[in-house]
Amino acid sequence: MHEQEKTYNQLAGQRVGRIEAISDGVFAVAMTLLVLDIHVPLRDAIHSEHDLALAFCSLTPKLLTYFTSFMTLGIFWNGQSLQFNHIKHSDRDLTWIALFFLMVVSLVPFTTAFLSEHFSYRFSIGLYWLNIFLLGLVVYIQWTYAWKKDYLDKNDPAAIAADKALRRRIIVAQALYALGALLCFINNYLSVGFIILVQLNYALGLTSRGRRKA
Amino acid sequence: MHEQEKTYNQLAGQRVGRIEAISDGVFAVAMTLLVLDIHVPLRDAIHSEHDLALAFCSLTPKLLTYFTSFMTLGIFWNGQSLQFNHIKHSDRDLTWIALFFLMVVSLVPFTTAFLSEHFSYRFSIGLYWLNIFLLGLVVYIQWTYAWKKDYLDKNDPAAIAADKALRRRIIVAQALYALGALLCFINNYLSVGFIILVQLNYALGLTSRGRRKA
Amino acid sequence: MHEQEKTYNQLAGQRVGRIEAISDGVFAVAMTLLVLDIHVPLRDAIHSEHDLALAFCSLTPKLLTYFTSFMTLGIFWNGQSLQFNHIKHSDRDLTWIALFFLMVVSLVPFTTAFLSEHFSYRFSIGLYWLNIFLLGLVVYIQWTYAWKKDYLDKNDPAAIAADKALRRRIIVAQALYALGALLCFINNYLSVGFIILVQLNYALGLTSRGRRKA
Amino acid sequence: MHEQEKTYNQLAGQRVGRIEAISDGVFAVAMTLLVLDIHVPLRDAIHSEHDLALAFCSLTPKLLTYFTSFMTLGIFWNGQSLQFNHIKHSDRDLTWIALFFLMVVSLVPFTTAFLSEHFSYRFSIGLYWLNIFLLGLVVYIQWTYAWKKDYLDKNDPAAIAADKALRRRIIVAQALYALGALLCFINNYLSVGFIILVQLNYALGLTSRGRRKA
Repeated sequence: MHEQEKTYNQLAGQRVGRIEAISDGVFAVAMTLLVLDIHVPLRDAIHSEHDLALAFCSLTPKLLTYFTSFMTLGIFWNGQSLQFNHIKHSDRDLTWIALFFLMVVSLVPFTTAFLSEHFSYRFSIGLYWLNIFLLGLVVYIQWTYAWKKDYLDKNDPAAIAADKALRRRIIVAQALYALGALLCFINNYLSVGFIILVQLNYALGLTSRGRRKA
Repeated sequence: MHEQEKTYNQLAGQRVGRIEAISDGVFAVAMTLLVLDIHVPLRDAIHSEHDLALAFCSLTPKLLTYFTSFMTLGIFWNGQSLQFNHIKHSDRDLTWIALFFLMVVSLVPFTTAFLSEHFSYRFSIGLYWLNIFLLGLVVYIQWTYAWKKDYLDKNDPAAIAADKALRRRIIVAQALYALGALLCFINNYLSVGFIILVQLNYALGLTSRGRRKA
Repeated sequence: MHEQEKTYNQLAGQRVGRIEAISDGVFAVAMTLLVLDIHVPLRDAIHSEHDLALAFCSLTPKLLTYFTSFMTLGIFWNGQSLQFNHIKHSDRDLTWIALFFLMVVSLVPFTTAFLSEHFSYRFSIGLYWLNIFLLGLVVYIQWTYAWKKDYLDKNDPAAIAADKALRRRIIVAQALYALGALLCFINNYLSVGFIILVQLNYALGLTSRGRRKA
Repeated sequence: MHEQEKTYNQLAGQRVGRIEAISDGVFAVAMTLLVLDIHVPLRDAIHSEHDLALAFCSLTPKLLTYFTSFMTLGIFWNGQSLQFNHIKHSDRDLTWIALFFLMVVSLVPFTTAFLSEHFSYRFSIGLYWLNIFLLGLVVYIQWTYAWKKDYLDKNDPAAIAADKALRRRIIVAQALYALGALLCFINNYLSVGFIILVQLNYALGLTSRGRRKA
């Protein structure tokens, strides 16, 4: 086929740098928007230091949700970032996979607020889990697609190591998230607590730290 | 004319990188602001899992609008991104064309919310179409201007291919959007449904995928 | 003085790239936040196409303000961008000048909303003018400082041309803005209209376009 | 250990450029979100120029808080920026330290609004101080970690100078902030005034300017 006859879709979306730039933008805005959900207690309701301390304590669930969502976004920003350490080329399909990923990222502030508002209902845990599942699914599809299309150097040992580590990480993490979500059929607090522990583990790198020392 | 006597306007706006950076910023914020329009149902109105599921279902139009607008922004981000794969220089006029493009991009969350709030009125479909039309118009003017001013390498076969593909794509897409908007004189759902199908087609690359296989 | 004994302030703020990156971010968010001030008319108040068209028309002042502010931000983004085409080094003072500039940029959505809400009062015109004046003042100080400190190549004819053009542009523009603001002692519409014309002139490059042809 | 057997955590987070990009994004959004807390006085309450001027004056505390928080964010953006002038490599732990730093940065608009709403209570001064303390703590940990892990060139005299300056600056500044916070046991205005003076000093570089002349 002649170069001149290439369709729009075959030409679109080649530069990895632009995808990284818009991703950093979307993650940065989503991370910062999360804080808008924590409302300062109104002056009229506060008459003493004690009132104010109590009002602040009643914000604890919002603050916890904020930290959890920030960690979720951090985990997946890290994962996507690692992929683009190796992916050197792109096409329109990879660009659109990356855009769908950002669409799911933008939903995190919503599903997080939904969970923190309706903590006692299984529906909201299911919705939150669905958001995390979609994040994992799209990021897995992105890597698989880039690998299949040779958009990274498959002879580079670092890329091969990243391939194994990424796939294993996504599958193990998603299995743990699914297990956590299913725990809501026993108890909601248990379920959310388990999911937060999984996230903390990945954010702080606890288990792997142990393994490294061994 | 001596270099020293150049006016401000002849000097302003030379670097393509800055235009790309501010564009990625505006697109990222616009994409993420869209989610602020989806409000979490209030706790007081919910008394059972069933209530919550129903309340979530009533958010479906908002979620659909969110996905549609994200796709619209993605389509035009892709189009502008493709242009700047080839445009190597800039001047103040090109910079201002790019800024007017971003001004229209920033309006997408507004016209989208307008449409989702007043779905049954032709006026809101007309407004939404006008936004999409302006996006296409400004992006077309930008390319034509850069081409006329030799801000890209016209001997590069990739640039020639991009020129043909971009122009064809914008004209065909805008014809389809206009047709979709006109369908509102038959039925509003038909009109919006058609526009969404056109967008999905471009986001998923359906027709061109078929053509490629053929 | 030994390298090891340099103070924090002598070390801070060297990289121009970071200043440009945070500037693009602040401008992008400020540009996109402007649209949050345009509220979609509520469904309950609308009973016909005619109602909706009227409700949209009542948004015209907000839309005009939106366009004006976007142009203001575009004009100063362009000006700052042109400066950093030439400024190659930075120090902590230049970094802080750039940060104070961004502080004034962030105020544009506020003074704009203030003007559009209190259009008939001279106070709001004065406030809007003060914002534009501070933008011009800080951007002028930034250039003068960088020039004095040799942070650009003073032997580069392009830099010399930029120096003349930048200084002339800022002084002429600020004189016109001040004149426009003073017109409010005759009539408020005249005053705001004049300021908008000055901005449109700089955004569209009308007078210089004429001069170039001559 | 073979390259192929590296775990996900050993591979994640290598590129300093991505950390800088998301940091600039989060700082830019946080800086611009601050202005959303300054509400334009409503039209209905204003009947004369005098009313409007009074209404604007009543916004002074909000404006002061805005400037203070912008300076706080500027100070720490500068500090983090200076660190990444020297840090050339990264790993997953450094990436997560940087993300925790951004998490604390995102809280600045919240603790600032909290302080401006509850100015007369010691609790809000304590909370505001805690935010500044955490910013300093995480940024100190980040530098110490990067230094210990050899992620910068320890033979570069500029890096050694930066090391001394950074550590001294953080410790002195945090001691002054803590002193300022403790002053709230005498008087709240004294306490906040002292903290603002410390911030102004670092933003304007007053004391070091004197020292440089000496």
